[in-house]
Amino acid sequence: MSKFFSAKYAALTPYVPGEQPKDAQYIKLNTNESPFAPPASVVAAAKQEAGKLHLYSDPESALLTKKAAEVWGVKDTQILMTNGSDEALNFAFMAFCDQTHPIVFPDITYGFYPVFAELNGIPYEKIPLKEDFSVDYHDYVGISKNIVIANPNAPTGLALPLWQIEEIVKSNPDNVVIIDEAYVDFGGESCVPLIEKYDNLLITQTFSKSRSLAGARLGLAIGNETLIADLNTVKYSTNPYNVNRMTAAAGYAALCEAQWFESNCAAIQENRAYTAAALKKMGFTVLDSKTNFLFAKSDKIGGRALYEKLKAKGVLVRQFNAPRIADFVRITIGTKEQMDALIERTAEVLEEEK
Amino acid sequence: MSKFFSAKYAALTPYVPGEQPKDAQYIKLNTNESPFAPPASVVAAAKQEAGKLHLYSDPESALLTKKAAEVWGVKDTQILMTNGSDEALNFAFMAFCDQTHPIVFPDITYGFYPVFAELNGIPYEKIPLKEDFSVDYHDYVGISKNIVIANPNAPTGLALPLWQIEEIVKSNPDNVVIIDEAYVDFGGESCVPLIEKYDNLLITQTFSKSRSLAGARLGLAIGNETLIADLNTVKYSTNPYNVNRMTAAAGYAALCEAQWFESNCAAIQENRAYTAAALKKMGFTVLDSKTNFLFAKSDKIGGRALYEKLKAKGVLVRQFNAPRIADFVRITIGTKEQMDALIERTAEVLEEEK
Repeated sequence: MSKFFSAKYAALTPYVPGEQPKDAQYIKLNTNESPFAPPASVVAAAKQEAGKLHLYSDPESALLTKKAAEVWGVKDTQILMTNGSDEALNFAFMAFCDQTHPIVFPDITYGFYPVFAELNGIPYEKIPLKEDFSVDYHDYVGISKNIVIANPNAPTGLALPLWQIEEIVKSNPDNVVIIDEAYVDFGGESCVPLIEKYDNLLITQTFSKSRSLAGARLGLAIGNETLIADLNTVKYSTNPYNVNRMTAAAGYAALCEAQWFESNCAAIQENRAYTAAALKKMGFTVLDSKTNFLFAKSDKIGGRALYEKLKAKGVLVRQFNAPRIADFVRITIGTKEQMDALIERTAEVLEEEK
Repeated sequence: MSKFFSAKYAALTPYVPGEQPKDAQYIKLNTNESPFAPPASVVAAAKQEAGKLHLYSDPESALLTKKAAEVWGVKDTQILMTNGSDEALNFAFMAFCDQTHPIVFPDITYGFYPVFAELNGIPYEKIPLKEDFSVDYHDYVGISKNIVIANPNAPTGLALPLWQIEEIVKSNPDNVVIIDEAYVDFGGESCVPLIEKYDNLLITQTFSKSRSLAGARLGLAIGNETLIADLNTVKYSTNPYNVNRMTAAAGYAALCEAQWFESNCAAIQENRAYTAAALKKMGFTVLDSKTNFLFAKSDKIGGRALYEKLKAKGVLVRQFNAPRIADFVRITIGTKEQMDALIERTAEVLEEEK
């Protein structure tokens, strides 16, 4: 830290992304990337823009936004495209929260929420998940604070039904409820249809998971057009050309690939069921995931030890040294071959533990 | 504005980017883009990454940062790569300025500085340029406030010599001096060599202009490694994967094209001299530009009228409805053909004014 660093960040602990090892080739199941490359049309669309890089991207991402509005069944004034969904989330924290508008979220959830809060000087409160790691929606009904909930939640993978989300949104009309739907395409219920009914609902989604574009950085926010206008005010005061040309084109093409998208999500769900069954057979507790990862705990080995032993065997999963979940590992769903390797190595580890 | 928008932004007026018209084909000389596409190797590098978009980009942009360190002759801990240089500037305002650490900058300069200040609740003061539109460096010597100066400045195009920048940096040891060198490659003197001597100097640069990558969104900050560490703290609390795969690869390849870079900058300077001479011949006052644009004022027609009449003739330049400079237009330097078109249409406009 330099002597010039603002005192307002004294307590700030940045987010730590999952390992991106450069030293060895791992079966990388630790950052919830898709194991499947984007379809050829998406690659081609990105490539086509590469020759025009001397010209700025459209700050409005107008074509992409229009297509997204079509796909999500909303107006283009109800959508904002961002440089990954982290940017959408940060804009939302900036726009709607402040010292007198605190935010609440589950104690076990995406680790970035407290960081966004700290960064922006926003008071926050963590509400414990239930014993079974699910969100108790009663905790949020009429709480009269801003709320952010990942649905499905990470790293648990558990989802709330739409009607419970609606109860939360309806009962907090003077506060913004942010639903982070990064993983919704793998079995969750999206609350996008509710935006016409509630002006306090903001949804974030990402192209990183179900659309295989983590490396392109593309996310979005969907909500009432006055909320989106506020996010635009923040965007145009931060980084107007936030989405580059190649990514905007790739995103557009991805939205045209409805069938590919369906089978991509189906393949992940199939591999997830396969892996969950195998882990349960080995004595694991496996939470009911609606995402592209599994959150699982062995009755024979601790989470940290399992993470380390799998890493030594060339398989990278993620483990969080945090209360209540330290004994779990989070396993990204990969290809069938990757899952077989994970299952095999896990069996070896358990055998060695005997 | 929604009823949920934080009161802290009540006075915020977002930045307005130059027009990106979608309705007609213009000779577009209004956003300081390069008229030259990036070299084939850069296009190829970006394309190669398009097939790997399902995998996250490296949050450290390690390869690109190492190459950049080589090119700028600094250590890789002294560089941060960003999603355009606007992001680097915003991070710097966030990191080093706050309610008790105000910032000063010229009254006529990049219009985003007051926006970053407003956004982050930072008190700021504008220091008038001299009558001739140059920065009087004496105004900043020992001012004991944070400072941001675009050098060369925009939209004037005028540059300060290195020794004057050094006087400013040296005389404000307890404050951060940010030098925005977006346009430095077209004739300015970079102050990067000073970072070893001064721990309070932060430089931002961009790949948008001299490296023909405006549409890829790539910028950087260079400074003492403790300053860069602070910017990293902000980055990892905002958007860790800020640079996408394709852009990182394009940036790396661009840095390998030293000779192309030289001729690219030389071509712009040649076209600039050619255009400046022609405008002067027509009675224009043309400031001594060290950038990829000219700031020029006719003795026969006002700035707004000239902008509008050129637009009607298919040539887009930029005009600022701001005190002292409303009679100027800012003309991006394009190809020789584009400059000939500009000169011809301008002559027509002046003829019609007679």
